[in-house]
Amino acid sequence: MSAAIRIVLVSPSHPGNIGAVARAMKTMGLYDLALVTPRRFPHAEATAMAAGADDLLAGAHVCATLDEALAGCRLVIGSSARSRSIRWPQLDTREAARQLIAAREEGPAALLFGPERTGLSNDDLDRCHALVSIPANPDYGSLNLGSAVQVLTYEIRMAVLAQAADGEPDGVAEAQTGRQRLATADEVEGFFSHLERTLHQVDFIDPARPGRVLRRMRRLFARARPEEDEIQILRGILTQVDKAVARGTDATDHEQE
Amino acid sequence: MSAAIRIVLVSPSHPGNIGAVARAMKTMGLYDLALVTPRRFPHAEATAMAAGADDLLAGAHVCATLDEALAGCRLVIGSSARSRSIRWPQLDTREAARQLIAAREEGPAALLFGPERTGLSNDDLDRCHALVSIPANPDYGSLNLGSAVQVLTYEIRMAVLAQAADGEPDGVAEAQTGRQRLATADEVEGFFSHLERTLHQVDFIDPARPGRVLRRMRRLFARARPEEDEIQILRGILTQVDKAVARGTDATDHEQE
Repeated sequence: MSAAIRIVLVSPSHPGNIGAVARAMKTMGLYDLALVTPRRFPHAEATAMAAGADDLLAGAHVCATLDEALAGCRLVIGSSARSRSIRWPQLDTREAARQLIAAREEGPAALLFGPERTGLSNDDLDRCHALVSIPANPDYGSLNLGSAVQVLTYEIRMAVLAQAADGEPDGVAEAQTGRQRLATADEVEGFFSHLERTLHQVDFIDPARPGRVLRRMRRLFARARPEEDEIQILRGILTQVDKAVARGTDATDHEQE
Repeated sequence: MSAAIRIVLVSPSHPGNIGAVARAMKTMGLYDLALVTPRRFPHAEATAMAAGADDLLAGAHVCATLDEALAGCRLVIGSSARSRSIRWPQLDTREAARQLIAAREEGPAALLFGPERTGLSNDDLDRCHALVSIPANPDYGSLNLGSAVQVLTYEIRMAVLAQAADGEPDGVAEAQTGRQRLATADEVEGFFSHLERTLHQVDFIDPARPGRVLRRMRRLFARARPEEDEIQILRGILTQVDKAVARGTDATDHEQE
């Protein structure tokens, strides 16, 4: 059982932000929140913004100093709006997430966020092993505290899930999952033969280039990989078109007699 | 110069959320926002929550219908809280981001978010080629709208930066190579409207369940992602069927005179 990843907010000013952070954490499966000298906490705005994550607020560790909040942590990464200095290793968001979940094996790991206006102070940075920054728009990098925590805890969750799925193919197994029975090759061929007959009947196929339209339709349907009952619907449509056209043709023939 | 990725909010209830979305988008370098029938907009709460992103609100395209919001889009991905149905391809967040930025080469691509309480409706989903869901905590998956947009636009920015770093189209662009121009959302809608009329004309549609067949056809063609000239061929087939059936009907009417 690995230890927790702790989110540490240093001197947050707005109680609403503390609630938003709790909510963001819980959506990403993190529960360990420490607050260093929050200006106002507990507070109704924090509870309101936490929505269903008020259990995290109730369990939050309110600390008088940063050192207290970091007790037991073997890795401390600070979140910084942008590259602050060359003194600290700069990690991108994914690498930071990987390092945090790897460090859990040894004990708690902490991800630190500074006060809303000023960010982490030099004293805070001195506690950090590395810094991470979200690669925001250089013209407008103003993520609020809750959003910054949402993005970084999302990366942590992605790293946790990737680790859990280790060895399995990545989530991109997409398109085929849960789909109904794909049509067999002969069912698909039956549809194309039927389509060809119907297209002749409605004079759509150019006798000079009989194969062109059908080839395009084959490609289109090959990409879709039709299911069995989709082929049945398509055959049903063609049958109904055949009947409607036949009624017309019969009537015309009849009229001409 | 590639086209924009458009964020489309369908019937957002809370103006504050619209502002939060604008802010999230701008931090991640996205500027194209469309609002389908927002309950209250413009609104002071939206402006307040947008902070320095109020220019996105001023430029937002307010639409009466989803089709209007999707005009010109060649790829439409819907955001869904979790796997909604087995019928749409499910993409993970990274794959969705990669597909959206690859699609930009062809024209605008859209990422859709439903109303806060209910999410995207079935009619909305019918416009989507694929769905994406954020892998949230199964015990508490309650990301608010602004947070969901923050996470997905962050992934889009990561994909854009990765592409820029590579200096070449992303690996997934391979899937598109050699393909012709994809049909736009309105071209595809034009085809579905035509298909519906023709299916009525040949009495294929069950009046008791008018939507069922069309929904299945929408899903099938969404998976195929038709090209522009494939849609033209399909429209041509329908027109020819209409004529063939009309000849029959006219003749029958005539006969009965």
